[in-house]
Amino acid sequence: MRVDVLTLFPEMFAGVFGSSILGKAQEKGIISLNAINFREYAGNKHGSVDDTPYGGGGGMVLKPEPIFRAVEDLLGRLEVEGEGSTPDEGETAYESPRPRVILMCPQGETFTQQKAEELAREEHLVFICGHYEGYDERIREHLVTDEISIGDYVLTGGELPAMVVIDSVTRLLPGVLGNETSAVTDSFSTGLLEYPHYTRPVEFRGWKVPDILLSGHHANVADWRRKEALRRTWLRRPDLLQGLELSEKDKKWLEQLQAEEGRDTEDK
Amino acid sequence: MRVDVLTLFPEMFAGVFGSSILGKAQEKGIISLNAINFREYAGNKHGSVDDTPYGGGGGMVLKPEPIFRAVEDLLGRLEVEGEGSTPDEGETAYESPRPRVILMCPQGETFTQQKAEELAREEHLVFICGHYEGYDERIREHLVTDEISIGDYVLTGGELPAMVVIDSVTRLLPGVLGNETSAVTDSFSTGLLEYPHYTRPVEFRGWKVPDILLSGHHANVADWRRKEALRRTWLRRPDLLQGLELSEKDKKWLEQLQAEEGRDTEDK
Repeated sequence: MRVDVLTLFPEMFAGVFGSSILGKAQEKGIISLNAINFREYAGNKHGSVDDTPYGGGGGMVLKPEPIFRAVEDLLGRLEVEGEGSTPDEGETAYESPRPRVILMCPQGETFTQQKAEELAREEHLVFICGHYEGYDERIREHLVTDEISIGDYVLTGGELPAMVVIDSVTRLLPGVLGNETSAVTDSFSTGLLEYPHYTRPVEFRGWKVPDILLSGHHANVADWRRKEALRRTWLRRPDLLQGLELSEKDKKWLEQLQAEEGRDTEDK
Repeated sequence: MRVDVLTLFPEMFAGVFGSSILGKAQEKGIISLNAINFREYAGNKHGSVDDTPYGGGGGMVLKPEPIFRAVEDLLGRLEVEGEGSTPDEGETAYESPRPRVILMCPQGETFTQQKAEELAREEHLVFICGHYEGYDERIREHLVTDEISIGDYVLTGGELPAMVVIDSVTRLLPGVLGNETSAVTDSFSTGLLEYPHYTRPVEFRGWKVPDILLSGHHANVADWRRKEALRRTWLRRPDLLQGLELSEKDKKWLEQLQAEEGRDTEDK
């Protein structure tokens, strides 16, 4: 997979792209990660890529030309049009299949594991990251294929969100994760939050590992883990339980948990 | 504000901590950002910080000692206990006010702008980032004050989520954002998604800026923007409209928009 990120802060990406899973996936040749400064496509000697908004108000807005030029360069359309020319009468003819051009923005669809799986099937992703500027609406309407938000909070730019999406997509590519890394991180693949984990020492400052985990009785351990995953999900994220296919055993446990927790509350 | 991040990959943070708003906030002395490798607190010559889970199964689990030691060192309790000692009979006596110790994990509460505002009122934040390992449950139960997830997707570690939280908190600290940066990024502060932005040129490849933005009529521009913000929110994130205080004018517009969009759909 090839991933190109258009940003005014390419230096933000070096540490993340070079470390851990992303670094290894590049070494293995599974992915190629590139951070490109779209100021290089400004097309004016001042390198200006933004301007004040029409209609007034504060803030700056990213101009359409530099970003159109940068994306078209990446997609292999090397001819760069001058300002105001309309070569295609409002239509842009991309080669097929067209790579995904993803705008990171608070107005986008909320990123999910399902979206990560969808993007992991692509061969080429282009990310556009604004940085406290708005985007000219024509970028949104005529250039991008996807608008993604990673959550309902305000950040200073699209760079961290792009890294988040790239990380979640890369770990899904075949050959990227070894066995040692795949087992623990599957919170959202079972649909439940993870059960509690314990490792050595058996006793730490008086806090002990639950006896059942030391029993060596695999079926009891499996039952305990399933029950604790259900408990944690019900207590913290009951929304995740909706729409999940639960076994009869699961349902009985949930009823039991609800009764237990209700009793705990009354005791206090 | 002082921010300490415990991680096995401190090199991931340099580019992000050194650039843009986070870099400037440090230069101004508003925030101090430190990435600390908790392998230094392993307490054994192999630098081992994780081990296999009790009860079996794949994956590795971060041991409690190195992380307890690292946090206690940061919080000024310099005495480091040996394995198995129970100095406080299961209680840890921190100085008051206790800094927030935040575990980045998929099981945590979903991060929101409200949570960012809450954390921005603190003087010291400590982040714990696991990296495809699970956390020993005793870390969760006896050391951390907050567990945070940035969204429902799987990542290879807590490092990017910690950067996301730190970025959103830092931009809220007094003196960090200048006027040029504060205006455009307020999507979640009005409760609506942003209206469309346009800048020069007036016409780009045949796509024109809406006439109303060129009219110079401020009241009409403000009306158009409010209406477009309502439209975008209603189309993309109707959940955000629930619980929002809308004026009579807003409500009338929304009804009108719903009628317009219904008509558009019928036309197609």
